[in-house]
Amino acid sequence: MSPARRHDHYAQGVRAKVLIRPKDGILDPQGKAVEGALPALGFDGVSHVRVGRLVELDTDDPDRLEELCEKLLANPLIEDYEIEVSK
Amino acid sequence: MSPARRHDHYAQGVRAKVLIRPKDGILDPQGKAVEGALPALGFDGVSHVRVGRLVELDTDDPDRLEELCEKLLANPLIEDYEIEVSK
Repeated sequence: MSPARRHDHYAQGVRAKVLIRPKDGILDPQGKAVEGALPALGFDGVSHVRVGRLVELDTDDPDRLEELCEKLLANPLIEDYEIEVSK
Repeated sequence: MSPARRHDHYAQGVRAKVLIRPKDGILDPQGKAVEGALPALGFDGVSHVRVGRLVELDTDDPDRLEELCEKLLANPLIEDYEIEVSK
């Protein structure tokens, strides 16, 4: 593989950001824990806290990101995911 | 409190999204676990996986979001955070 070819290959790579959230209606214990801790820390007026995951990765094949989410990153039964691709 | 007053109060609220990531150079076991699982699932060309947290909440006081992150949502010693406010 020539250096030029290698550079082309590298140029296909993208940085992807996957936001994973508990589905509406699914209990979110981490979110409830945050809400429970707020008053003692003096924070008022904060509500509807939901805690999810943020996964960032480099991939050469952005077309397979949805499959990657379904199979590994998220649990589609209880979580929604959103894929953002940059570069 | 009149309905109009209540509506004004509600209108101050914003939905905030906080992205929390392990700092560069900090070990990320969840990211390594994802990377380790990829070959067996047939995913090639995925690298630099980092797993963080996504926190979404409603707040009446967006000026205190940074303090909220420092005190409760993130561990500033090992994590970076990014605040996005919408509405």
